[in-house]
Amino acid sequence: MTLILGIDPGSRITGYGVVRDTGRGCEYVASGCIRTGSGEMPERLQAVYRGVREVIRLHGPMTMGIEQVFMARNPDSALKLGQARGAAIVAAAEEGLVIAEYTATQVKQAIAGTGGADKQQVMMMVMHLLKLVQKPQIDASDALAIALCHAHHRQSLIPHGLTGAKRRGGRLRL
Amino acid sequence: MTLILGIDPGSRITGYGVVRDTGRGCEYVASGCIRTGSGEMPERLQAVYRGVREVIRLHGPMTMGIEQVFMARNPDSALKLGQARGAAIVAAAEEGLVIAEYTATQVKQAIAGTGGADKQQVMMMVMHLLKLVQKPQIDASDALAIALCHAHHRQSLIPHGLTGAKRRGGRLRL
Repeated sequence: MTLILGIDPGSRITGYGVVRDTGRGCEYVASGCIRTGSGEMPERLQAVYRGVREVIRLHGPMTMGIEQVFMARNPDSALKLGQARGAAIVAAAEEGLVIAEYTATQVKQAIAGTGGADKQQVMMMVMHLLKLVQKPQIDASDALAIALCHAHHRQSLIPHGLTGAKRRGGRLRL
Repeated sequence: MTLILGIDPGSRITGYGVVRDTGRGCEYVASGCIRTGSGEMPERLQAVYRGVREVIRLHGPMTMGIEQVFMARNPDSALKLGQARGAAIVAAAEEGLVIAEYTATQVKQAIAGTGGADKQQVMMMVMHLLKLVQKPQIDASDALAIALCHAHHRQSLIPHGLTGAKRRGGRLRL
């Protein structure tokens, strides 16, 4: 039984999702959005930092997955996204969490079985895998997908489970 | 008498500089480089966060200047720089500092009288203004320049001094 946090950082909205990995699957614990408001940039980054810290202190996950960004649209948006990522990662590191990064393709592959899945397909799979009745907000859904991906990859590292090679790129089985 | 921190963040080296604004000029207090080492990215960001926090707790500045980045070379380096900036800004915000951003042109103009000054010219002026005998490291010099720029702009906001309009873009007078 391990609690896993997924974070989808952004300069305006940072999604978070917490799942419980029972060893035989994942259960939904919590998800939501940290909104950074319309204040100055330092205040907005502080909101990300404090929001992530609050989620960690409330639910007590021991590890965090975060999406690795390869292709930002342009240097300006990359800088803003980087700042929000920095604030979120520092909050998790200061709370003692182990942090892992996954590419968007890894997340989609773990959740939907294909790296080409779109956001709606990922959301439907997140709802199915976690038995959610209501649609989560898109940023919360993305964060839950990252948490599920992290659970999947963590399991593949456990020696008595399926081997990493067999599970790599495969679909998350619950 | 106000202590002012200048920060020049980077994913490998973050320069810092602390100056004392006496109201009639600035005096050197401290400067140096926070090296983030060769660990994983979360550890490096934590090193920036903790390093900036340590400098703040040691010297007790009440305000921080940081360079505003307009033109990063590419999205990938912008993201990395953004992450380091995010870690540094969150550290200062959490310690209660007021944070101001300045463009590279504003910093050069305040220090050397022209937005076209190069790094060596800025360093020579930083040494002259702060009466330094030894050359500081380049990242520390840049951080001291930002601190001096911040001192300059703060003074221009004081009503009984020269007006903001008169001093805007002018050279720092000590």
